[in-house]
Amino acid sequence: MSERLEAQFAFLNEADRLKSVLRATTLVDGSRPENSGEHSWHLALYALVLADQAGPGVSIDRVIRMLILHDLVEIDTGDVPIHARNGQAHASPETLAAEAKAADRIFGLLPSDLGDSLRTLWEEFEAAETPDARFAKSLDRVQPVMANLMSGGGTWATYEVTYGQLESRVGTKIARGAPALWDWVKEKARPWFG
Amino acid sequence: MSERLEAQFAFLNEADRLKSVLRATTLVDGSRPENSGEHSWHLALYALVLADQAGPGVSIDRVIRMLILHDLVEIDTGDVPIHARNGQAHASPETLAAEAKAADRIFGLLPSDLGDSLRTLWEEFEAAETPDARFAKSLDRVQPVMANLMSGGGTWATYEVTYGQLESRVGTKIARGAPALWDWVKEKARPWFG
Repeated sequence: MSERLEAQFAFLNEADRLKSVLRATTLVDGSRPENSGEHSWHLALYALVLADQAGPGVSIDRVIRMLILHDLVEIDTGDVPIHARNGQAHASPETLAAEAKAADRIFGLLPSDLGDSLRTLWEEFEAAETPDARFAKSLDRVQPVMANLMSGGGTWATYEVTYGQLESRVGTKIARGAPALWDWVKEKARPWFG
Repeated sequence: MSERLEAQFAFLNEADRLKSVLRATTLVDGSRPENSGEHSWHLALYALVLADQAGPGVSIDRVIRMLILHDLVEIDTGDVPIHARNGQAHASPETLAAEAKAADRIFGLLPSDLGDSLRTLWEEFEAAETPDARFAKSLDRVQPVMANLMSGGGTWATYEVTYGQLESRVGTKIARGAPALWDWVKEKARPWFG
């Protein structure tokens, strides 16, 4: 057991570094950039609170597990903002390859049974094909929209985002897992774009 | 539905403030104090990774839900370090009364069905009587021990903690929900105290 616990804590101590990965989005009060650790916590809370927005068959507990894990690869790759490089950087082949390599290293710190099961869950999130993963992705997209709205524009101003770009890069993904949520949020967001 | 979503987001935006509540414990690398938002995320990850340390009948998903919520009251009260005021401040009647008032306000932002169910879960955590709550409390106590070990002493140095005090304030609570975990961790911690 001792060897197993050594590996579990090697992973948990390494995971601490996610608290030092900074995102483009700020806190709601605009005081500083958000880090990916606290962002992951906020998303888990989103899942608890917005569970009634999930479609039939979604397991909120699996969604929460995915959201806890979803950004760990950023310890190696850093956060790639959705609106950076005119929206082209986020899912580029280079980014995806770097994230897979990071997953090898980080989940590889764990005992293999545990590392494999957590990595499989992370891959399900990334693929965004199951109802659980789609709902998790919707929450990951909607939280920065709220932070931007609350902080006076945030990354929309930084990256000179248009409403059309918000709709194509963000809205379609929110709508895929939580359509009524996007209907509500877009009415909040649209006025900011004039 | 619109009114319900307004209340859900009023709560989620207010919850963002937990990212600005600073704890006595630092990050593992010692670079800065940890905040209670990222701490809550780290604990949820602890629950996922250390699930095999939970006793029979423990639901890890309920534990994770508790850990996501457990510090929200600190938005109003701030964090009360376990070793502050010679270990007397943390569960003082004043602290508990302030936390109950904070829970009234913060969970009260939600639609009442949802606010009541999340508050009930927080109260279960606080009471530390059920197997789920005891395991959640064990994780909440073990994570700062690891941060102190990794960062060269942390709050043990700040508050001049003895090994006996660590055992009585922290060890007994870890052992209550995760006895084998405390057996392992105490062997790691003891040498620091000389």
